[in-house]
Amino acid sequence: MTAEPDEAALKQLYADFEANDLTPLWTQLNDLMPLVPAPSAKAHVWRWSTLHRLAERAGDLVPVGRGGERRAIALVNPGLPGTAYIAPTLWCAIQYLGPRETAPEHRHSQNAFRFVVEGEGVWTVVNGDPVAMRRGDFLLTPGWHFHGHHNDTDQPMAWIDGLDIPFSRYTDVGFFEFGSERVTDEASPAVSRSERLWAHPGLRPMSELDPRISSPLAAYRWEHTDAALTEQLALEDEGHPATVEQGHAAIRYVNPTTGGDVMPTIRAEFHRLRAGTRTRTRHEVGSSVWQVFEGSGSVVLGGEERSVSTGDLFVVPSWVSWSLQAETPLDLFRFNDGPIIDRLGFSRTFIPEDGS
Amino acid sequence: MTAEPDEAALKQLYADFEANDLTPLWTQLNDLMPLVPAPSAKAHVWRWSTLHRLAERAGDLVPVGRGGERRAIALVNPGLPGTAYIAPTLWCAIQYLGPRETAPEHRHSQNAFRFVVEGEGVWTVVNGDPVAMRRGDFLLTPGWHFHGHHNDTDQPMAWIDGLDIPFSRYTDVGFFEFGSERVTDEASPAVSRSERLWAHPGLRPMSELDPRISSPLAAYRWEHTDAALTEQLALEDEGHPATVEQGHAAIRYVNPTTGGDVMPTIRAEFHRLRAGTRTRTRHEVGSSVWQVFEGSGSVVLGGEERSVSTGDLFVVPSWVSWSLQAETPLDLFRFNDGPIIDRLGFSRTFIPEDGS
Amino acid sequence: MTAEPDEAALKQLYADFEANDLTPLWTQLNDLMPLVPAPSAKAHVWRWSTLHRLAERAGDLVPVGRGGERRAIALVNPGLPGTAYIAPTLWCAIQYLGPRETAPEHRHSQNAFRFVVEGEGVWTVVNGDPVAMRRGDFLLTPGWHFHGHHNDTDQPMAWIDGLDIPFSRYTDVGFFEFGSERVTDEASPAVSRSERLWAHPGLRPMSELDPRISSPLAAYRWEHTDAALTEQLALEDEGHPATVEQGHAAIRYVNPTTGGDVMPTIRAEFHRLRAGTRTRTRHEVGSSVWQVFEGSGSVVLGGEERSVSTGDLFVVPSWVSWSLQAETPLDLFRFNDGPIIDRLGFSRTFIPEDGS
Amino acid sequence: MTAEPDEAALKQLYADFEANDLTPLWTQLNDLMPLVPAPSAKAHVWRWSTLHRLAERAGDLVPVGRGGERRAIALVNPGLPGTAYIAPTLWCAIQYLGPRETAPEHRHSQNAFRFVVEGEGVWTVVNGDPVAMRRGDFLLTPGWHFHGHHNDTDQPMAWIDGLDIPFSRYTDVGFFEFGSERVTDEASPAVSRSERLWAHPGLRPMSELDPRISSPLAAYRWEHTDAALTEQLALEDEGHPATVEQGHAAIRYVNPTTGGDVMPTIRAEFHRLRAGTRTRTRHEVGSSVWQVFEGSGSVVLGGEERSVSTGDLFVVPSWVSWSLQAETPLDLFRFNDGPIIDRLGFSRTFIPEDGS
Repeated sequence: MTAEPDEAALKQLYADFEANDLTPLWTQLNDLMPLVPAPSAKAHVWRWSTLHRLAERAGDLVPVGRGGERRAIALVNPGLPGTAYIAPTLWCAIQYLGPRETAPEHRHSQNAFRFVVEGEGVWTVVNGDPVAMRRGDFLLTPGWHFHGHHNDTDQPMAWIDGLDIPFSRYTDVGFFEFGSERVTDEASPAVSRSERLWAHPGLRPMSELDPRISSPLAAYRWEHTDAALTEQLALEDEGHPATVEQGHAAIRYVNPTTGGDVMPTIRAEFHRLRAGTRTRTRHEVGSSVWQVFEGSGSVVLGGEERSVSTGDLFVVPSWVSWSLQAETPLDLFRFNDGPIIDRLGFSRTFIPEDGS
Repeated sequence: MTAEPDEAALKQLYADFEANDLTPLWTQLNDLMPLVPAPSAKAHVWRWSTLHRLAERAGDLVPVGRGGERRAIALVNPGLPGTAYIAPTLWCAIQYLGPRETAPEHRHSQNAFRFVVEGEGVWTVVNGDPVAMRRGDFLLTPGWHFHGHHNDTDQPMAWIDGLDIPFSRYTDVGFFEFGSERVTDEASPAVSRSERLWAHPGLRPMSELDPRISSPLAAYRWEHTDAALTEQLALEDEGHPATVEQGHAAIRYVNPTTGGDVMPTIRAEFHRLRAGTRTRTRHEVGSSVWQVFEGSGSVVLGGEERSVSTGDLFVVPSWVSWSLQAETPLDLFRFNDGPIIDRLGFSRTFIPEDGS
Repeated sequence: MTAEPDEAALKQLYADFEANDLTPLWTQLNDLMPLVPAPSAKAHVWRWSTLHRLAERAGDLVPVGRGGERRAIALVNPGLPGTAYIAPTLWCAIQYLGPRETAPEHRHSQNAFRFVVEGEGVWTVVNGDPVAMRRGDFLLTPGWHFHGHHNDTDQPMAWIDGLDIPFSRYTDVGFFEFGSERVTDEASPAVSRSERLWAHPGLRPMSELDPRISSPLAAYRWEHTDAALTEQLALEDEGHPATVEQGHAAIRYVNPTTGGDVMPTIRAEFHRLRAGTRTRTRHEVGSSVWQVFEGSGSVVLGGEERSVSTGDLFVVPSWVSWSLQAETPLDLFRFNDGPIIDRLGFSRTFIPEDGS
Repeated sequence: MTAEPDEAALKQLYADFEANDLTPLWTQLNDLMPLVPAPSAKAHVWRWSTLHRLAERAGDLVPVGRGGERRAIALVNPGLPGTAYIAPTLWCAIQYLGPRETAPEHRHSQNAFRFVVEGEGVWTVVNGDPVAMRRGDFLLTPGWHFHGHHNDTDQPMAWIDGLDIPFSRYTDVGFFEFGSERVTDEASPAVSRSERLWAHPGLRPMSELDPRISSPLAAYRWEHTDAALTEQLALEDEGHPATVEQGHAAIRYVNPTTGGDVMPTIRAEFHRLRAGTRTRTRHEVGSSVWQVFEGSGSVVLGGEERSVSTGDLFVVPSWVSWSLQAETPLDLFRFNDGPIIDRLGFSRTFIPEDGS
């Protein structure tokens, strides 16, 4: 090491690095390894009214069928322009299916779910099992399960899709296969076969005793979610521990064969706040997406307050602080990349004492 | 080694062994290490009418309270005379609580459950949570949970207790502690707090995300068990895989935090056979106890057929072959030491091709 | 319940219980469920000189071969008379093989190990892999592995066998199968094939990446055990954490595919105390057997001090307090039923503050 | 849906999508979800002579110290221009430390290792434990362990660093903290304390019985790796299963507390091919980096053959086929993102029958 570096030699060195597919660490350390997570993704809110209106217009203009596969419109994080991603690891879209339309079957490595904030009438057929989609339901399509959707009514329906497309694309792990042009079972039962086998609390069929990487339960129905949250708040009223903090009930959707997350890359939860509740402020490692299911209030994201109401979606990038404030009783659905963070040992949460 | 052993010397050697707290393997190998499991326990059937009548008489003659703790009458395996054990690892008793009686609180390392074949009106209070006991319910008291029972009615009630008392006594692992003379919460709600928190299919409270060694769900209600079995048979009728074999539906009770057995030493299941169904014959490692919940039929135990009907109990020692035959629709509860066998690597099942 | 029980009626009731294979809990609760573990097994010490001398006499008088299978003499716990058991769950024997003798091959569900306190010259052949036995070595024969032993020298050799025979007999889980009359590979290599594949620290063969229920490593050599303990004491001298308590180094033998116990029912450890060290007094759930490998000192068992020296064995029943005191540097081998206790959730340890 | 879409309306719709931070799936499905992994990263070879020469020039021109932290020059995948990444998930650099230089201490969430292809004389100090670096050694710095390096000699030294920097940056999980300006322990022992505690095959210190997310063993020494591979080939010669395929020995570096990968995001292996061996062609999900440690031969990457020899590095992106051909005996080090792929359920391998 010379005391005074020779600028010309250094310049030549850097040029030779580049010519040989090399780059120095020392000039870019801060960007590569920031002191705390420094996401390119930004916190952002999308309004349901806007999303729904644009989806309707797409319904009028764009057919659904083999090739494009789905009339799904992805939420693009303003900090990740040019991508189709709401967060580095997560994809989130509004999907719209017109009266009597069918989205053909396919399967892929990517894990997927649907969450229904309004409407009904579509059946998603997962590995041949027709699954009704209704308001408040959380519906799974784990990786490599064939699936298509068909609208059995004369009304359109829209819902939210969540997938790990960005993660799969980034890590180069995805396979895709086309299936039937139509759904393989056009029946429209109220309850799927997967629920008939699996949606009994604390019971599992003895024909299926091995653990599974993803939940075998295709539908988590609103009536159960609502009941669980109602009970938590009632127990709190009666003086028993049940909620995550005062006035804040929450459930995690889980794989009944393990008690863990529903799919290996995606965590899903449902939160209910009493009117007037303000949650503690949290910094969490990992990216989250929320949708208001019912009610109105506000979210403080990185110190900036935004009002939200039924159907609105917002994204919380890694380590951006968030807290929720409920004007009315406030119900929210949340999904995130928690299983990735946890399984790889990167989990960390910080709750400032002063609530900031 | 001498060609012709000296009998006197050998006799002296064996005497010296005994005097020094020793014993040779070679004279007792077959008994210590048989070619296949050779249980001392025998297959046996107890009649519910007999059990219930004797329990009633005990109700007239024997008080319940601190010291004796429970009016429980244990089923003694005829092959294990002098013990109180239905199988080497398992304890099973009929417990009887008269009108307005209370069985005081205590806790112990031993894992316990109750199963109700008839009646109602008793609440078991587990760590302060009153749990109603009704026909068809399976109720947990995992190790080291305080528990007492009180009869809130003017009618007596009887049920089945299952514990790992023999295993705990044998391995010398048990601790015991007395608690309140009366139950610590005399309320009689229809639903326990544990159910309100945990009995929602595929959902868990976010205030409780760690796995637990035993299920946090204190009651597995008959309505869910019945529904699960009804659906399995309906799915079979519709041509879908759901049952363990033709005409034979079955569920395992599980810990929702893991998807595994409800307690670390005891497995519990419920089986339903269509009228006319005969199960395959099975040899299984481990000891099982069955109770007919409803219906009539027969069980073939080690080749010997015995008729059974509502309330009858029978024990199947390790490796004794068994099959069930249903005359009417036949519902049966089963518990066994499966978690011990599985966790320690001894599991083995044999299903003869010829059904013998 | 009557205020004054009718003695005759009660007597008749108890007789009717017995006639119907029943027994009341309330008369025997204390025995079945003691406040703390109340083992029938007693703490006891066996002298190596006695064991070895009797084994030699057996060598002169009793042949080894098919049928008796092994010239093994079991240590019988004085509290378990009539059994062949050193503890309710554990079997321990001295095995003796004369010059050029062969113990024929067999396999069984029971898990077994050997530990060598003196001598060498025997090869145990495990699933066809000849494993030399030398002083200080710990050697595995996990369940259902074929194994035989042959003495390749003109000197007899004796060692300690440990098995879960009592546990397997008690739970009725054992199968047994005879194999070759002689060992299937009579070679006498210094190092087994299992060691050549597996005894490389932190490395595993990519041809074997699945976890295994028992360790694939057939021999844990003295040189490694000794080095590990030497380093722990040296690190302690240098001021770094390494020992379990001051002056007390210890290693656990583990399954390299999991980092856990070597076999599903048996834990094994090696302890080294500096001269003058006295360990804290411990009460532990589960049964342990110790053998002094080298040195002299004493063990306090349930408050009673016994001197021990090279080769002596002692058993510590569940919850009986123990502490060790080293007059000279003291090396001890230990095995116990820890994996049974841990996997079934019964683990508990108590270390009195006052050392009592 | 209209039969003939109105082009102007469609154009307006897409503009409105963009204005509202939305994007359609149907126009980009193939790119987002290809039929098989379609990595942007390209297979590529870097020559050791080039790397080393440029690192030496950096040693002359660029100081090492607080701020830049390390004189590390990253290999940039030609398919990922503008990044510092050898693969989407992995970072790989040559690090160079001049005589008597010190790279200051810091810690970060990112998991790191070093592999030494030549030279010695540097100690990496990991959480205060000085770890000598010598040829053939594989050295760990798991996430959030403080570490610095110092060269204790008058010779420069260069080695390879591998980290999950890209994955951590992409998922926004990384924290970073500066430590001491110099290493906290300047001693230069031949063996680290972590090895003295942990590098004993099949043994673990009883002071450390909990599983750990990353290996507690800081150094995997060449002598052990070499011995393990030598034995595998010898066993193959003797007719025993040991290698992954004929002529191809391989070990995986593992965490002795679990038997699994050394760190939660990075897998590491060492491969040895006999002269003349050609491996089967494999397609694997996930990104791998190889370095030739000794010998010469060629690698066929996606059908294109490239010759490689001592020190050369190459990257194999996801699903790009690879096979190795050894001219001389050929030793290779490999690391990849296997734990990410496996833990998240995306693992898949394809070995064409025809070797293509």
